[in-house]
Amino acid sequence: MPDQKILVAQGGGPTAVINQSLVGVVEEARRCWPDRPVYGARHGVRGIVAEDFVELSRETRATLEAVAATPAAALGSTRDKPDAAYCTGIFKVLQAHAITQFFYIGGNDSSDTVRIVAEEAARAGYPLRCIHIPKTIDNDLMENDHTPGYASAARFVAQAFAGADLDNRALPGVYVGVVMGRHAGFLTAAAAGCRTRADDGPHLIYLPERVFDTERFLAEVKATHDRLGRCVVAVSEGIHDASGEPIAVQLAKTVERDAHGNVQLSGSGALADDLCELIKTRLKIKRVRGDTFGYLQRSFLGCVSAVDQREAREVGEAAVQFARHAGRDGSVAIQRLSGAGGYAVEFKLLPLTAVAGRTRVMDEALLDAARSDVSPAFVHWLRPLLGADLPQAARLAGHPVARLLDK
Amino acid sequence: MPDQKILVAQGGGPTAVINQSLVGVVEEARRCWPDRPVYGARHGVRGIVAEDFVELSRETRATLEAVAATPAAALGSTRDKPDAAYCTGIFKVLQAHAITQFFYIGGNDSSDTVRIVAEEAARAGYPLRCIHIPKTIDNDLMENDHTPGYASAARFVAQAFAGADLDNRALPGVYVGVVMGRHAGFLTAAAAGCRTRADDGPHLIYLPERVFDTERFLAEVKATHDRLGRCVVAVSEGIHDASGEPIAVQLAKTVERDAHGNVQLSGSGALADDLCELIKTRLKIKRVRGDTFGYLQRSFLGCVSAVDQREAREVGEAAVQFARHAGRDGSVAIQRLSGAGGYAVEFKLLPLTAVAGRTRVMDEALLDAARSDVSPAFVHWLRPLLGADLPQAARLAGHPVARLLDK
Repeated sequence: MPDQKILVAQGGGPTAVINQSLVGVVEEARRCWPDRPVYGARHGVRGIVAEDFVELSRETRATLEAVAATPAAALGSTRDKPDAAYCTGIFKVLQAHAITQFFYIGGNDSSDTVRIVAEEAARAGYPLRCIHIPKTIDNDLMENDHTPGYASAARFVAQAFAGADLDNRALPGVYVGVVMGRHAGFLTAAAAGCRTRADDGPHLIYLPERVFDTERFLAEVKATHDRLGRCVVAVSEGIHDASGEPIAVQLAKTVERDAHGNVQLSGSGALADDLCELIKTRLKIKRVRGDTFGYLQRSFLGCVSAVDQREAREVGEAAVQFARHAGRDGSVAIQRLSGAGGYAVEFKLLPLTAVAGRTRVMDEALLDAARSDVSPAFVHWLRPLLGADLPQAARLAGHPVARLLDK
Repeated sequence: MPDQKILVAQGGGPTAVINQSLVGVVEEARRCWPDRPVYGARHGVRGIVAEDFVELSRETRATLEAVAATPAAALGSTRDKPDAAYCTGIFKVLQAHAITQFFYIGGNDSSDTVRIVAEEAARAGYPLRCIHIPKTIDNDLMENDHTPGYASAARFVAQAFAGADLDNRALPGVYVGVVMGRHAGFLTAAAAGCRTRADDGPHLIYLPERVFDTERFLAEVKATHDRLGRCVVAVSEGIHDASGEPIAVQLAKTVERDAHGNVQLSGSGALADDLCELIKTRLKIKRVRGDTFGYLQRSFLGCVSAVDQREAREVGEAAVQFARHAGRDGSVAIQRLSGAGGYAVEFKLLPLTAVAGRTRVMDEALLDAARSDVSPAFVHWLRPLLGADLPQAARLAGHPVARLLDK
């Protein structure tokens, strides 16, 4: 087939390092196939059916490197999930442009999109190599130790809670921070990432892996506040009751669903506000403050893990190498090498069905058995991902001065 | 008077660099008066009446430097505002410990506390040198070009909006970010700090210096969304109607007041949620998201302006020098040297009455005359404060590929 072309696109929610993977694909593709144009589709599969392409292989290296260091999705993204008719539109365009390699960077919804496109391509007899490149701040892809984008978002959450804990120590009360994560608690759990001393917050962490019990929550907040005079709480937006219904939905007046049928939990401060109201009313604690980290945690310009940047780049490069040499479609996965003590990863090509549309959640071993908290094993797993240059909070030694009055 | 001692304390809301000023006082005081103990009061004036002191002059330099780089208030803070009876309690303690120099790091409420303490000391004939050291993310102190803490918070807000704008470009819709600032819009205005291209957001900025008109707001959001297919909006928590009533209060069910009689606007996501609901309902735009930056913007660990760090340190050092040589009480102010083009500041000692309890707001010249936005003069004023290493977002050149179908 002459004049073959390569296509790359980005799907789902932006991350701090998704453009590293994009640039990894472009740089590796134009090194491996110097004569093949590399196209980028604007706004994911939506840009394919709309024939909205840019020629990435004409970009300068300086621009590509600057874009790689920029958060969000430089090509634009989409929440569209193609059905068979949508796929027919996709193949018509791919065929017209002689595109034979398709790289799609995204989460588990996007990997499902890749699976559908690959299956429809096989059915239509269209020769298309499809590689899914992982990306998600939720870290919820099966058979991945972690996913590009997670570590930088985790770093943001860890630094945010370290700061909120210092703020709460200076002006004591209860602080509730709500973190993204519908089914998987990995990102909320990262709130523990900067803890160094026994009384460092967050003191309580509520994850969607466990049933949220309002009475237990209130009792734990009260016990912590009684003990320390303050309490910092990390809450996942996806916490739910025993029936599986999200607490945010129970409390929200209106519910919005996206194209995947998911309830919209992000983009509202209601859960934090309602939990604060509950604490004020029931525990009679006066100073109770809530924050919802919202979009800051996935797109903040200037908070990134160097490990995440490096791996996100490499996963894009590895995708091109798999497309050349593996002889099959698949999803690139990051797996951690264990045994020798140090931190190292390797890149594998998994079948698309291993990842597509499935959700990984936290193992029991990563949670504290007794309290609403993560286990030391989780923190041990997390630390290398956050980067060696994680800022550290310090305290005064605080040599006490003897009282002279009212002794 | 033998065995004289120095006292330093921190009041009001924490900032990213308030500990730089604390360490500036401690280091300069123990260099100037090697034999005088430097005490720190825990939780501001509250710690003074409670005789809750630590001996800061016994801290190691390594600890002091690590604490200086840590956000929030290492000594703890308070919102207490002393009356005459409270002051009597303060003098009793100061006298018992032979404290003759009092440095209080805080905003305009704290400077008013210093003014009251200084006046009561004079009335009581107690020899006390009182110096107020400025600190506030709001940048609302009179006769200061800017205040320590503002630049780092401004940097957080600028980086947050740069990231949110990239996110909104990737997945278009309307984004509303609510920023702290009750009366002064400086911090919200910093949302413009990273803009580089004509279509960079925020596209609209609403400040408390102007009356907020809901119909005008909706018309401007609609016009921007029609033009760009998206719209990023920065809103100050303090926006109010023509009668001066905050929009947040109009919409909030319950209102909480602090010891200064101020309505509590922070710590709730309601304003962002209510503005989003308004846009969805009235403009029929589907994807509308809101974030409230909350406590992250003042305490986030790891987002700091180097200029702010340096100046916060120096303002503490300058306070000690004024206490030694000025022969009067006062408030240290940062003033910018103008004329030669480059950025430079000098430190002045103002009368406490020039600062105490008064609020500086943005001049008309810093606002755009026609649109809901800041003026180029504001951005010109802001840029040097954010630090030379402000991260920059990049875009693909985006060489278009000709359509082959549906031409």
